[in-house]
Amino acid sequence: MPPLNPQPHSTAQELFAEMSRWPIFDPHTHIDPRRPAARQFDEILGYHYYTELAHSAGMPAELVAPDLDPSTRVHNLVSYLDRVDSTVQYAWLLEIVRTFHRWPHDRITPGNIGELLDRSDHEREGEAWDKEVWKTSRLEAVFLTNEFDDGLDGWDTAAYVPCLRTDDLVLKLHDPKTIARLRAASDVDVQDCASLRGAIGRLFERFVQRGARACAISLPPDFAPRRPSPRRAVTPIRKAIHALELRPDEIEDVRAVVFWMLAEFCAEFRLPFDLMIGPVRNVYPAGVAGGRDLFDRRVSLYEYRELFNHFANVTFPVSTLAPDAGAELVAYAWIFPNVLPLGHWWYANIPAFIATDLRARMQALPKVKLLGYYSDAYKLEFIAPKFNMYRRILADILAEEAIRGRGWSVEEALQLAKLILIDNPKRIFGGNQPS
Amino acid sequence: MPPLNPQPHSTAQELFAEMSRWPIFDPHTHIDPRRPAARQFDEILGYHYYTELAHSAGMPAELVAPDLDPSTRVHNLVSYLDRVDSTVQYAWLLEIVRTFHRWPHDRITPGNIGELLDRSDHEREGEAWDKEVWKTSRLEAVFLTNEFDDGLDGWDTAAYVPCLRTDDLVLKLHDPKTIARLRAASDVDVQDCASLRGAIGRLFERFVQRGARACAISLPPDFAPRRPSPRRAVTPIRKAIHALELRPDEIEDVRAVVFWMLAEFCAEFRLPFDLMIGPVRNVYPAGVAGGRDLFDRRVSLYEYRELFNHFANVTFPVSTLAPDAGAELVAYAWIFPNVLPLGHWWYANIPAFIATDLRARMQALPKVKLLGYYSDAYKLEFIAPKFNMYRRILADILAEEAIRGRGWSVEEALQLAKLILIDNPKRIFGGNQPS
Amino acid sequence: MPPLNPQPHSTAQELFAEMSRWPIFDPHTHIDPRRPAARQFDEILGYHYYTELAHSAGMPAELVAPDLDPSTRVHNLVSYLDRVDSTVQYAWLLEIVRTFHRWPHDRITPGNIGELLDRSDHEREGEAWDKEVWKTSRLEAVFLTNEFDDGLDGWDTAAYVPCLRTDDLVLKLHDPKTIARLRAASDVDVQDCASLRGAIGRLFERFVQRGARACAISLPPDFAPRRPSPRRAVTPIRKAIHALELRPDEIEDVRAVVFWMLAEFCAEFRLPFDLMIGPVRNVYPAGVAGGRDLFDRRVSLYEYRELFNHFANVTFPVSTLAPDAGAELVAYAWIFPNVLPLGHWWYANIPAFIATDLRARMQALPKVKLLGYYSDAYKLEFIAPKFNMYRRILADILAEEAIRGRGWSVEEALQLAKLILIDNPKRIFGGNQPS
Repeated sequence: MPPLNPQPHSTAQELFAEMSRWPIFDPHTHIDPRRPAARQFDEILGYHYYTELAHSAGMPAELVAPDLDPSTRVHNLVSYLDRVDSTVQYAWLLEIVRTFHRWPHDRITPGNIGELLDRSDHEREGEAWDKEVWKTSRLEAVFLTNEFDDGLDGWDTAAYVPCLRTDDLVLKLHDPKTIARLRAASDVDVQDCASLRGAIGRLFERFVQRGARACAISLPPDFAPRRPSPRRAVTPIRKAIHALELRPDEIEDVRAVVFWMLAEFCAEFRLPFDLMIGPVRNVYPAGVAGGRDLFDRRVSLYEYRELFNHFANVTFPVSTLAPDAGAELVAYAWIFPNVLPLGHWWYANIPAFIATDLRARMQALPKVKLLGYYSDAYKLEFIAPKFNMYRRILADILAEEAIRGRGWSVEEALQLAKLILIDNPKRIFGGNQPS
Repeated sequence: MPPLNPQPHSTAQELFAEMSRWPIFDPHTHIDPRRPAARQFDEILGYHYYTELAHSAGMPAELVAPDLDPSTRVHNLVSYLDRVDSTVQYAWLLEIVRTFHRWPHDRITPGNIGELLDRSDHEREGEAWDKEVWKTSRLEAVFLTNEFDDGLDGWDTAAYVPCLRTDDLVLKLHDPKTIARLRAASDVDVQDCASLRGAIGRLFERFVQRGARACAISLPPDFAPRRPSPRRAVTPIRKAIHALELRPDEIEDVRAVVFWMLAEFCAEFRLPFDLMIGPVRNVYPAGVAGGRDLFDRRVSLYEYRELFNHFANVTFPVSTLAPDAGAELVAYAWIFPNVLPLGHWWYANIPAFIATDLRARMQALPKVKLLGYYSDAYKLEFIAPKFNMYRRILADILAEEAIRGRGWSVEEALQLAKLILIDNPKRIFGGNQPS
Repeated sequence: MPPLNPQPHSTAQELFAEMSRWPIFDPHTHIDPRRPAARQFDEILGYHYYTELAHSAGMPAELVAPDLDPSTRVHNLVSYLDRVDSTVQYAWLLEIVRTFHRWPHDRITPGNIGELLDRSDHEREGEAWDKEVWKTSRLEAVFLTNEFDDGLDGWDTAAYVPCLRTDDLVLKLHDPKTIARLRAASDVDVQDCASLRGAIGRLFERFVQRGARACAISLPPDFAPRRPSPRRAVTPIRKAIHALELRPDEIEDVRAVVFWMLAEFCAEFRLPFDLMIGPVRNVYPAGVAGGRDLFDRRVSLYEYRELFNHFANVTFPVSTLAPDAGAELVAYAWIFPNVLPLGHWWYANIPAFIATDLRARMQALPKVKLLGYYSDAYKLEFIAPKFNMYRRILADILAEEAIRGRGWSVEEALQLAKLILIDNPKRIFGGNQPS
């Protein structure tokens, strides 16, 4: 047993201090590259984490309705903030205002929100503010979530990296709007399986040409990928394309076909296929925007075995939504070379669950497969505080287990941290060059 | 990062010391208000936590049969206590005998049980002993579990607060005894859906008049609430009322109808509806009394979405039995304003599971929704030791996360503790006044 | 609250230091008693934990194909070791080479693997090496995993204790090879249910005569034991025995019949029946040998209720594979006297999951039912490092909870540790003497 380090917490602080100076490579966000930073405080406080928590704590959803004046929404919400000020989400908020708006107070209250609105008003600075937040946060690359018909024009795609989000293609192909959008985006007259494939191929071409580094999808708990029978799918696909009514089993066929096709294109274009498994949309329809989705915890990656086997040459970074599903992901990433645990998602993105999952991943998985963290942010300001939350947990685990438990040096611990936070994500999401 | 606190454990001890002086508001017990404290030791040692653990460790169930002499039961069980003396349940027992019976020894053994039986004999003191335990424990209010036909007479309902327990109505309506009891309790000649509703309405009226502050039910894992079709339910309800044989789907219809009716009355009478989700009764029929129930861990709150949506104005304090279901409850309480995590129940009521669940709840949920703890006790003596177990865990988490992690003061940490332990339960279970 | 112990970590080190001097009683391994220790390094590095992790990290499975030269396999694998050197599995490896091969370096690399191959070559020593590893590790008894037709000859069965592994009988009875093996092993002309029972009875007789102390089986997640109907099973059993095609429901009947029969013989011969619940075989067929199995986490012990009830006099040590199923096992072992949690298995055998499970078991279960740990090892060298991993976790929990939390002495904590690690396993697996 290695010599006792009497102060693991001061070691953890030393590790965190170093990590907090590192650049950030963020492989999944919902940033709008045309307006990445928050130019007014409503863009911060309007984040669904705050509106849904305030609503959960008693605020009527109407008080943050999208058609209200932004300043009104902020004033409405701020009077509920004291009900949620013990949460980690509130801690992100405090770190944001301290870091980016030099906020000198301990709290955000109805009494001082006027001062904060002034301090956080960066409309006049425009893009200069985006750059300042980028620089202060030491951002290196931020992945986007682009609809398949996004034009992908008008920004630096090396900084704001396109990702092809494909939920609508798989889950809503039978919606006439989807087909119309697909035809417009691909310039292909989609009529059947073959032309559907042609159109989706065009999307991949365009995304890869514009620097996309991943294809991504979120999948409900009742979705089970399976190798589709081409013959059997002909009719359902045609019915979906022509907006004819589909039986439930035909909807399943359509989903299976399109999903499998996406995986085939990921193989062809050498794109990682991010699987975000678990959400059920609109479980709570009366909730605030962005705060209506939940999950059914009874999921298993066992349903994905055929996919993982068949597409041995596709990398599948996987996030699971049900926190109790995290242990299973460790086992699947342990055995399947092409399955990697990706970050800590949404309802699983709180310190208690991150610590449990991260500890298990670090103990059981090849270090080259640890795909640290992503922010899932809508505005740049959130990236650093969320990464700092993760870095603190990582620092704690390294101080306890690696340095005290195994006798590693601080330098060795930091090397592993860098692999997890930066090197692995950069390599795995390194673009479609042969690796 | 806040300045390092070098001694989180001494901080935790300071926090606990303060909390241990607070009054206790206990929103769920099985106390008998007519004989709340244990006047002899068999009422302590006969708690199913001890009989089932001793039986699990090899004691034949007959040795604690209900028809045995109490002193014989105690003598029988005590010789198995050394097999379970490392458990947290045994730690409650030691705290009880030290606190209430000035027990000077480290253990309870066949050799000293005679002394303990003497010390713990409070038959002569009668109600004075109830009062002493009440005072020593600093009890403020203790919620009961009342059968729907409980007379609710003969005690101070401000101290011993009635709760309407409804398992029999939902799960055993087809049992002729249930209907007979319902007719007697409501004075309504129950014959069909309408008169059933009338009878249940009478129960709510009476309970609320007598100060009831919650309706409660425990539900098996295969129960999924759904909005019933009134027309379709007419025949099954009538068959149930008249003790005719029901098909399985008809039993489901009856359960759905009665459960939905209860939720409607909770809305009308502004009563929180405690949902205790998970147990399967009598999984181990050869077990000791109270030690025969278990669960199937494959449950999801997703089955409750229609209920939570439909009854937006009913507060649902929720306890789940499968410890691994705790993370899902955090997510549902995060999104649904009317869903609150209630305590730590039964098989989930051990420190390892409490700590995991509590940490996640404190990090992710509005602090005004944290419904700390309940004792589930059958005798007053258990309340303080169980709350102390919870308070120690709460103190540890606050010392680590709030004080060391976020730089809060001891005062701020204690304010949050008070909210969780006292203020929230008192407000949520504040009676049927408009809040 | 007991007086503060300021240094729980030095206490944990003291506890571990003591435990590391204790003998090891290992109730489940895959050791070959005819060649128990590794006489060359490929037998260490060829353990599926390393081949599967290296493969998961990018090594083609062909590089460790069984038909390659052992030294080639080692050289191939070693160049991938730096990708997995942060895992706990790698920590076992380092402890092995330091303990048994006096390895002076910090790492195992392509540059120094030649030196290690030399140091670890014990072919010439032969059985003397087995004895040295046995002695260095302080082994007392090591349980084997014997196929039902294993001859059980040629070794000291007090040291290498036979266990009857029964997967093939239950899950592959319809395979003609199984029947042929059964006839040969039992000398019974198996033709129907009665002769099947006779043959299996002969196996039990022989195993018990040769000192077997457990019957064991691993069961897939979709297996649910149920009391078979003898009449209904006649035809499926006969079809299975004569290699006729079985319908899926008939396969289920066969499995149910044979499994129940095994439990009956466990009752008759007073053998514990180890249930290892969860694995699905060959989920990843392209994996390395031993690295192809995974699980479906949606399992529940509720499916085993009929078994546990019916065979009240059979002891069922239970291991579950899905780490998130650990909490349910605590509850079932808490209630059923004949259900005991056995070790920490395979994907659940990493410190993060062990700590969670062990803490809960120690808090909630009778101490006499805590069946500590088993190594699952294929070579003797792995036993001590794996037990040391477990002992460190046990020492941490005892230092924190028992000594600091409850004020126990070091001596008391060590007594509990000894019960968990040695006394309980020896008693539970004490052979078929009446207990």
